[in-house]
Order: sequence, then structure tokens, then C-alpha cells
Amino acid sequence: MKIAILPGDGIGPEIMNQAVKVMNALGEKFETETVPVGGAAYAEQGHPLPESTLKVAKEADAILFGAVGDFKYDTLERSLRPEQAILGLRKHLGLFANFRPAILYPELAGASSLKPEIVSGLDIMIVRELTGDIYFGQPRGMREAPDGPFKGSREGFDTMRYSEPEIRRIAHVAFQAAQKRSKRLTSVDKANVLETFQFWRDVVTDVHKEYKDVKLDHMYVDNAAMQLVRAPKEFDVVVTGNMFGDILSDAAAMLTGSIGMLPSASLDANNKGLYEPSHGSAPDIAGKDIANPLAQILSLAMMLRYSLAKTEQADRIEAAVKSVLKQGLRTVDIYEAGTTKVSTTQMGDAVVKAL
Amino acid sequence: MKIAILPGDGIGPEIMNQAVKVMNALGEKFETETVPVGGAAYAEQGHPLPESTLKVAKEADAILFGAVGDFKYDTLERSLRPEQAILGLRKHLGLFANFRPAILYPELAGASSLKPEIVSGLDIMIVRELTGDIYFGQPRGMREAPDGPFKGSREGFDTMRYSEPEIRRIAHVAFQAAQKRSKRLTSVDKANVLETFQFWRDVVTDVHKEYKDVKLDHMYVDNAAMQLVRAPKEFDVVVTGNMFGDILSDAAAMLTGSIGMLPSASLDANNKGLYEPSHGSAPDIAGKDIANPLAQILSLAMMLRYSLAKTEQADRIEAAVKSVLKQGLRTVDIYEAGTTKVSTTQMGDAVVKAL
Ligand SMILES: CC(C)[C@H](C(=O)O)[C@@H](O)C(=O)O
Ligand SMILES: CC(C)[C@H](C(=O)O)[C@@H](O)C(=O)O
Repeated sequence: MKIAILPGDGIGPEIMNQAVKVMNALGEKFETETVPVGGAAYAEQGHPLPESTLKVAKEADAILFGAVGDFKYDTLERSLRPEQAILGLRKHLGLFANFRPAILYPELAGASSLKPEIVSGLDIMIVRELTGDIYFGQPRGMREAPDGPFKGSREGFDTMRYSEPEIRRIAHVAFQAAQKRSKRLTSVDKANVLETFQFWRDVVTDVHKEYKDVKLDHMYVDNAAMQLVRAPKEFDVVVTGNMFGDILSDAAAMLTGSIGMLPSASLDANNKGLYEPSHGSAPDIAGKDIANPLAQILSLAMMLRYSLAKTEQADRIEAAVKSVLKQGLRTVDIYEAGTTKVSTTQMGDAVVKAL
Repeated sequence: MKIAILPGDGIGPEIMNQAVKVMNALGEKFETETVPVGGAAYAEQGHPLPESTLKVAKEADAILFGAVGDFKYDTLERSLRPEQAILGLRKHLGLFANFRPAILYPELAGASSLKPEIVSGLDIMIVRELTGDIYFGQPRGMREAPDGPFKGSREGFDTMRYSEPEIRRIAHVAFQAAQKRSKRLTSVDKANVLETFQFWRDVVTDVHKEYKDVKLDHMYVDNAAMQLVRAPKEFDVVVTGNMFGDILSDAAAMLTGSIGMLPSASLDANNKGLYEPSHGSAPDIAGKDIANPLAQILSLAMMLRYSLAKTEQADRIEAAVKSVLKQGLRTVDIYEAGTTKVSTTQMGDAVVKAL
């Protein structure tokens, strides 16, 4: 089993160190290769996703990814910015199915900005399509407006598009995820305005015929954003497109107040996947040994479960994380009076010990 | 001063009745004309926005709009559905500047799903561009995918586009709104992924040169969705495109827990405007005399302030609404133990009395 390790920028390297420590403590042999990505790769090799990094990622059975992005690179032209690395990996590797759980650990109920009764026990799975939509749709660019009331003016434009096979495969993934949970699926679209998402709704409705044991609801994206705030526990599995999924999965993660705890998986058609924390690279706190490594460590657990079929090892890691929380250990982002503040390294060590 | 009254569907007519009662109690003469819109217009005349309704709206100085939409019309083809009426009015009347306040009344602090300390005193103004973006961009439709990995498959597609003059005019409106408030403006985009919104960011940055007294921040839409949940009071004025504005303004409204209280204004270049509650037509509770009429009544106040320059009358209505809240009167959506539950009609009567 070959694992590609891509620490990236900001807090990426320091939280990745903790995840690697945990991996090594599992008592199994994994073949790993560590390569630069994002700003770190640009600084070294002039490109955020160098050929050599892409090659290692392609040849691996799974990819453990840290985070990319730093203020330093904000003024680069877009194609060289760190975020292009993650977009490129998704596209080149065909990682179309993004799983983003939003789970509130009982010990961290106080961290949420929502009232405890609204969020306690929250456990949502957002399934976001990740290789289509307006993220990649061609044509896109700058031009003179070819028509309309501002014909001749300079304009920026992008194309939203979803084809039937793209919608079908993510719908299958989402229905199957729902079958393993509460058998409820909410498909989020904007069918009242967008042709793309009217088609999305039609195709999801059609795929539903093969999953009659799952209860399917359709919801407009604006309403979904409202219901997430009002009564998030009414959701179980949510499936949506790339753009809406970007917004809603971040909102859902933030409902827990502990985005530093949330892993994610991005899978291709064969369960090969890239695993990364839901939070970003947080360059403002990088190098201070204060970042929360648990999302990275839980991403490792997700990798073991989804791509490497090592359920037992995944269970062990997740149990160890729960145990350190029970012990009252907290990095600063989830610290509350009455708990023990620990550093990134101390948190990693505590998880290793709890294994 | 001519006012077009478009009650629409669902709870629209009953809340509009209350607003009209309040208008009549102001002791001024307004020339009004009431015309059908949405499902009601379709049922009567076969189209959600009949020529005759559009004509009355065009000739008026301001439009007071209720709400459109009902389950009954969900199976109609898209061009005949009630929502097309509001999209058509925006486009035909050039109502490009949508103001959506998210205000939490102190008396209603308990209604929010967020902790009181996170939302008490919340007062955000979302300025949403309303006639451009992927809502109206051509081309759009269904076709065989012309290229890409799914070439030849059926696909739905839409075009996101913003031209420089469109971005400029909404930016001016937003900077001016910020000047009248705390002089802070957050522009929300997705410049890291979309050409349209990289251009948006560039143009907003350029317009900023004319408003050096305003502090401008740029924020990605996914981060904005998170920050709205985490710390909404850090926002003051927010400006964004049509699609992102649809999602974020609904999320922001729901933070207050009292969307039944929130009005909105959609203005053209000359401050002619359409005024409507932020909530929808709620067909499930229509005709029961339980809907909250205050958003409709506050929309009337916004109309007097923005389009009719009747500041004093607007102030009177807003003071009357505060007074009924202080008296403890509540429709069912904002009811809490210890307050007095009232019907739609009773709430309207109470506002008239408090004038
Ligand atoms: C960094 C950015 C391009 C990316 C996205 O928009 O997909 C990020 O927000 C995410 O959700 O992984
Ligand atoms: C009804 C719908 C077309 C509309 C929109 O998406 O703009 C509504 O959600 C709104 O925000 O006014």
C-alpha cells in the first residue's frame, strides 16, 4: 500500500507531522512518499502542482493532504496560486465524490455558536460533487460582452454545466451513503433558476428509482442555507454540486464550532482517495505549534477506512481521539475553562499514547 | 405618488391587507392599484407576470410586493411558475440593487438558534446584485456536451457573467451604504476559482479608490458562510453577486430566527423600487390568519423611506412595530412563553393603533 504525503503550506506540515506519528504508531508497515504541494512546491519548483508531485499522487493508493495557501502567494497570477494544486489534483485524479462530515463531539458542544439544544448530537454527511460544475466548466475567461444590455463592455464569465453521467455517479454515491445511515437524502439545487440544476433534480429523481428504501427530498440552496442554521439536525445525508457544496459544507462544518476536528475524503470511482482536513492552511498561526492536528489525524483514519480497507485501524484512531477529548486535552481553538490547553505536538503525542 | 400593490400567493394577500391598513392609517393620500402576480396571476390570466401587471408596475413610483409560489404550481413548466414573476419584475424594471437587512430586535433575541451573545444587537446590511450573474446570463439550456470528458452526453448548462458597468454600479451603491453606516464593507466573491469573481474583485477594488473613508475587505463566499455562523456581528455592509447573495442573505436572515420580521428593497438607478418581505409565500399556513405581517409592514416603511422620501412616515411605522413588540404581542412564528399570541389581523390592528 503506497501512501503519498502532501503536507503543503501554513499549518499543513506541523499537523501532518502528528498524523504521520500516529500512522507509525499503528504497528503496520506503510510505504510513504512525501512531496511538496501548493506554495511550498511553487517556492521550490515554480509550480503549485509539479509533474513529479502529480506522478507520486497518481501512483499512490491514497493521498494524505495537509492544506495549501499563504498570504505570500496572493499576488501570483491565478494559475500559480496554491489553490490550483488542490483543484488540479481533484481533476487529474478524477476525485469526484467529496465526503464532508459535520460532527459535533459531545465534549465540544460548548464550542458551537449555536444553542446546545440545536446542535448537540449533530452528525451530517455532505456529499459534494468535486470535478464538475462551474469550477471547471469551459468556456471561461475575460472578453467583450458579446450581447445583452452591456454588449461591448469588458466582462468576466464562467460556465456552469453538469452532464447526465456526472450527476448519476454522484447520486449513486450519495444514495449508497444514505443507505448506510438513516436512509434519508436531501438533494440541494437551484432548479427554480438554473437549467443545470433543473437537470440535476431530474437525474437525481431518476436515480432514486434504484434506491426505493431511501427517502429523497429536494431543497433549494437558499433554503438549505437557512435550514442548516435553523435546525441542522433535520439533515442526514446531503448531496449537491461543487459550488453549492463548497458553501454549504463550510457552513455545516462551522455549525459545530470545531472545524479543527473535521476530516474529509475525496474519492474516485475506485475508492482511491485524497484525505484532507476541512479547515485551511491558517498561515497566521503556522509554525507556532498551536494548531489542532485532530482533523488531520481523523483524515488519516478516514483514509484507512475508505481507501485501504483497514477498518480496525481506523476505529483505533477514532477511539484514541475520543479518549484525548475525554481526558480534557484541548488545542487553543477548542479550549474552554476547565480543560487542559495543549500544543499541536502534545496533542499528537496524546493520541499516540491513547492508541 | 402611485403605488402598485402586488399581493401574490400564499400568505401574500393576508399580510398585504395589514400593510395596506397601516398605509391608510398614515393620514396621507396614496394612489394605489392592486394587480395579481405569481400563481394568482397564472390562475386568472395564464401567466405569472401578465403584461397588464408589468405595465402597472412600470408606471408606479414604487411597488409593494407580497410573495409568490404555491405547491399547486410546482408541476408547471418553468416559464409559467410563480417565481418567474419576481425574476421578470427585477429584470424588466432594472432593479439591480437589493438591500436585505438582517436585524435582530432585542425583544426577539430568544428566537435565534444562535447563542444570545453571538447575535444580540445583530444589524447587517446585505447588498445583493439582482439583475446579472448566472440568474440571467445567456446562453443557458440543455444540449449535448460539446466537449470535455462527457462529450456527447446530455447536459444542462448556464452562464455566469458580470460586466464592468454592472459591477461598478452595485459597488457604488454598496460603498455609499457603508458610508452611511460604520464605513466597513465586505465584498464576497470566489476569485480563487471563478473568472467572473476575479473580475468582480478587481473592479470593486478600483471603485474603492473613490471611497477612501470606507474600509474594504474581500472574502471568499465559503469563508463568508462560515463567518456568518461563527461571528455575524463582525459584518456590517456586505456586497456580493446575485447567486451568492441569494444564499448568504437567507442565511443571514435566519441567524435572527425571525425572518418574519425582515423587509427588503430592490432598487433601480433612480431609487424606484420593489419592496417585499424576505420570507416566502408559506402556502402551508396561508388563509389561517396566523402569518406574521410585520415584514410586509416594514417593507412599506422601507418604501416610504427609499422611494417616496417620506422619512417621517417610515419612522412612525418602525416605531409602531417596536412598540407592539414591547407590548409583548407575537404571531406564532416568534411566540415565546410569557408573551401574547396574536393573529395576523390582530397584529396589523395593533400596529395601526400604535401609530
Ligand atoms: C481552495 C479552494 C479552491 C477550495 C474550493 O473552493 O473547493 C476550498 O474552498 C475547498 O472547499 O476545498
Ligand atoms: C424565488 C427565487 C427565484 C428568488 C431568488 O432566487 O432570487 C428568491 O429566492 C429570492 O431570494 O428572492
